[in-house]
Amino acid sequence: MVREVSESCMDSLLTEIVSSYCNRFYANKPELAARRIEAIGYQVGHQLSERYTIERPRFTDHLEAIKFICKDFWSELFKKQIDNLKTNHRGTFVLQDNKFRWLSRMSGDPSEISGAAQDPSTMSENKAAQATGMHLYFPCGIIRGALSTLGIPCAVSADISNLPACSFVVRIKV
Amino acid sequence: MVREVSESCMDSLLTEIVSSYCNRFYANKPELAARRIEAIGYQVGHQLSERYTIERPRFTDHLEAIKFICKDFWSELFKKQIDNLKTNHRGTFVLQDNKFRWLSRMSGDPSEISGAAQDPSTMSENKAAQATGMHLYFPCGIIRGALSTLGIPCAVSADISNLPACSFVVRIKV
Repeated sequence: MVREVSESCMDSLLTEIVSSYCNRFYANKPELAARRIEAIGYQVGHQLSERYTIERPRFTDHLEAIKFICKDFWSELFKKQIDNLKTNHRGTFVLQDNKFRWLSRMSGDPSEISGAAQDPSTMSENKAAQATGMHLYFPCGIIRGALSTLGIPCAVSADISNLPACSFVVRIKV
Repeated sequence: MVREVSESCMDSLLTEIVSSYCNRFYANKPELAARRIEAIGYQVGHQLSERYTIERPRFTDHLEAIKFICKDFWSELFKKQIDNLKTNHRGTFVLQDNKFRWLSRMSGDPSEISGAAQDPSTMSENKAAQATGMHLYFPCGIIRGALSTLGIPCAVSADISNLPACSFVVRIKV
């Protein structure tokens, strides 16, 4: 039986962590904050992956492990599977969640993460977008940690140009 | 509808946060680490309390607010109510959860948090106990944050001398 906690608690904790890292420990050093948030996600993904695969035979290939992430792992975490999986058959996989839960409470227009602020009125929007971007390092880290534990070193990034959908791009290291 | 996430994810995240704060940001400064972990709990409790009471009339007295924490608030967070509530009718309330979820995966003998290490063989046990103690600052902060948001300033501590039960002692400030 998988036990559950209120998602709003998880949301709030994550928001607090991101805010602490960005404003307290690594103020004005967003790259460092991002790296640390990703590293926390990595550890969480590592622990969860170990727990969820404890009674399972080892995966024989990359696709099998990725499918495990899309189905079992995602279901344990979010009570739903990844909605769409694509691959270029050369080590890149795109995992799309059509309504990624950890983003659905966010406001602003986070698709403009890399857009430059033109005037003060867009500043707060860009701040919200930046906070959303920071949040995403956590699930990216979770996926990377889970896959590494399964013997697959990779890089993971997030694409939220199509909100509320979120795509995680997994590039397996060769 | 309350949405839920896997508790193991919350567990892992909390463990990582505690470890980061104790070993990275506030190494050898456990009081500071404790204060920061409590402060994060406070913010989470504040946010959750605002969310959960948004359509509710204001509480008219302390007991009513404490009962809200024991029933509705705890149910939202942990899918169960506080098992036992005691008060001395002079501003101190003891909220006992007979099987507190965030402790049930811990090992060691955390009841000895304040016991002094006598020989090296007990060192690792004491370390586990200290980690458990650190974990508890988070739910203590949550309760304090929630009650403060309801207009009740207080101090909250945890008593785990009777594991797996955990009692939260709320002392209302006059």
